[in-house]
Amino acid sequence: MPSPIEIALAEARAAALRGEVPVGAVVTDAAGAVLARAGNAVEAGHDPSAHAEMRALRAAAQRRGGKLLADCTLTVTLEPCPMCAQAISFFRVKRLVFGAYDPKGGGVDHGARIFAASSCHHAPEVVGGLREAECGAVLREFFAARR
Amino acid sequence: MPSPIEIALAEARAAALRGEVPVGAVVTDAAGAVLARAGNAVEAGHDPSAHAEMRALRAAAQRRGGKLLADCTLTVTLEPCPMCAQAISFFRVKRLVFGAYDPKGGGVDHGARIFAASSCHHAPEVVGGLREAECGAVLREFFAARR
Repeated sequence: MPSPIEIALAEARAAALRGEVPVGAVVTDAAGAVLARAGNAVEAGHDPSAHAEMRALRAAAQRRGGKLLADCTLTVTLEPCPMCAQAISFFRVKRLVFGAYDPKGGGVDHGARIFAASSCHHAPEVVGGLREAECGAVLREFFAARR
Repeated sequence: MPSPIEIALAEARAAALRGEVPVGAVVTDAAGAVLARAGNAVEAGHDPSAHAEMRALRAAAQRRGGKLLADCTLTVTLEPCPMCAQAISFFRVKRLVFGAYDPKGGGVDHGARIFAASSCHHAPEVVGGLREAECGAVLREFFAARR
């Protein structure tokens, strides 16, 4: 069975094939079961808020029929942006695991550092850098091919 | 014809009647035409990301069939949270007008101060405090009635 980061990587690669910036995310519950998985879908939906994390969080809560994911882990290939980081806080996600760091657009360890701001009332446990090289390579290859 | 902030206030009051935290938002184009209006819908959709601003931005872009709202104004009854502020940046909204300030959860003039962060690559013009008392009263009355 693929691990969460492998599922997220598969979603990122699938997004690239659709012409989307290749980021993938998956929500797993306390038992490790996959509640939802998603790739970036900004272009397809004319929706700059359709990041992989937002789509996976929303789908996981829908599936649960409740608005909180307090026992869940979100695994994503790239450091979440401030929008997604704040959403992670709102959904009360227990643990955030991400692959590549994003010094330019990230909002966890960079920029707005959402979880450290006074406007943040729940911060998940955070593990950054899992399969970092592989997660970053998917993005670099995508942008290199478009240049 | 009601002004944008009056439309946003009407959406906030309608949200309160549905048991939602009363925040309302409207997107208008350069000519002042209403592209989309929405209220908070977190409870109805089991979706903590279904803030009025997110819903209005998404609906406006859908209606346009494009992902940018570069000539548009978003008018909202409450200072946007960091999630919505970052989405406002992603949609390239030209102007943000809001009513009440939100020292606890706001992400524009408080907390993460999204538009001032290095992770923010587009900042709208911002006007805060329009019909501040009225916008704040709608929220205070809602929470007072629930206590």
